[in-house]
Amino acid sequence: MHRTKVTVVEEALDANNTIAAANRMDFDRAGVKVVNFMSAPGAGKTTLLEAVAASLPDVRVGVLEGDVQGSLDADRLAALHIPVVQLNTDSGFGGECHLDANMVRSAIPALPLDEIDLLIVENVGNLVCPAEFRIGEDARIMVSSVTEGEDKPLKYPLMFRTCELVLVNKIDLLAHLDFDLDRLLYNVDQVHPDVERMLVSARTGEGIDAWRDWLARIAVGEAVTV
Amino acid sequence: MHRTKVTVVEEALDANNTIAAANRMDFDRAGVKVVNFMSAPGAGKTTLLEAVAASLPDVRVGVLEGDVQGSLDADRLAALHIPVVQLNTDSGFGGECHLDANMVRSAIPALPLDEIDLLIVENVGNLVCPAEFRIGEDARIMVSSVTEGEDKPLKYPLMFRTCELVLVNKIDLLAHLDFDLDRLLYNVDQVHPDVERMLVSARTGEGIDAWRDWLARIAVGEAVTV
Repeated sequence: MHRTKVTVVEEALDANNTIAAANRMDFDRAGVKVVNFMSAPGAGKTTLLEAVAASLPDVRVGVLEGDVQGSLDADRLAALHIPVVQLNTDSGFGGECHLDANMVRSAIPALPLDEIDLLIVENVGNLVCPAEFRIGEDARIMVSSVTEGEDKPLKYPLMFRTCELVLVNKIDLLAHLDFDLDRLLYNVDQVHPDVERMLVSARTGEGIDAWRDWLARIAVGEAVTV
Repeated sequence: MHRTKVTVVEEALDANNTIAAANRMDFDRAGVKVVNFMSAPGAGKTTLLEAVAASLPDVRVGVLEGDVQGSLDADRLAALHIPVVQLNTDSGFGGECHLDANMVRSAIPALPLDEIDLLIVENVGNLVCPAEFRIGEDARIMVSSVTEGEDKPLKYPLMFRTCELVLVNKIDLLAHLDFDLDRLLYNVDQVHPDVERMLVSARTGEGIDAWRDWLARIAVGEAVTV
């Protein structure tokens, strides 16, 4: 029984990787780089996108917005006058907790790939399943808010292990928290040694220039790819 | 293709409900009330449990601790000298993002049901899937941290809709956030009108007495049940 379940999951992940490769070919053909942007709910993904998406030098950004329900984040980003496509995961049942390659594939016809250089896919807020499903991305970025505590890398290791950049967000709140930043960074290194990390605050602007520069390098193919 | 998927999911949820009912019979037979305790990662579930689990008047508390990996939270709670059983969801593949009735069932033999009156099941940190799987609980409590923003009820409606109590946590941080508490409570009412809610801070102790009293009422069967 248990073995059967494992086999089914492995087959599902194999099928996902096949579709992710097809997505990747479509993106490559259009010359579009793709970032899979992940975090727990409320870590600040959308606010971090608002801070940079319309101000990348010489890079046209589009956003694919993944949510169980609604289009609150897409509406915020559309106000920046960039192309935004909403992808909801709630059709038919209680709602998927992540985007997979097939869901992204279904959205490709709606994406203006000829008009953008960089597609940022804002995944469903969740630290578990999004890390298990490749979508055809060039890089994976996760946001870890300091309000979530220092232990998250140890409790959700796959998410921290499979990303190329960790944005440690809401550092403007450090003075008001019982939070040990060194301990968080030590725990990050325990599961993904030397992964690139940046301390940022979308609220104060601290670290935002570095994060924008990182995206700009991804957009021109200068950064590591998965 | 799509219909097939929906049917499979519905069958899985039916099977889950059957096992949840069996769990409930075992808990009832032992005279144990059960709370399913849920939130996003880092919302403060464990800290809120630390604040009350050893100080419920005349109620013996046990904890079933759900995590993808590790036993960090169980270790913290065991320090209170209460029975704690760890349940990890990572066996065999990338890790389940929620507890289901069968996982809880597998842990029942390890639980000292004769020695406790109230079992608190700390679910995996996730606002989507835990809400879809009953485990045989009497009540469901969710924690929504003010650091997560006002929009979470609208983005994760099932979680807010299926719980009997919403703990709005980390209210000591309100002065340092761009956060509209009235807007959050309005959004809660949009998806679950008049659900009971409490403003708490595990850090300052504000609201903790009310939350402890609520649990004590559950333990003696005075509160609503699912």
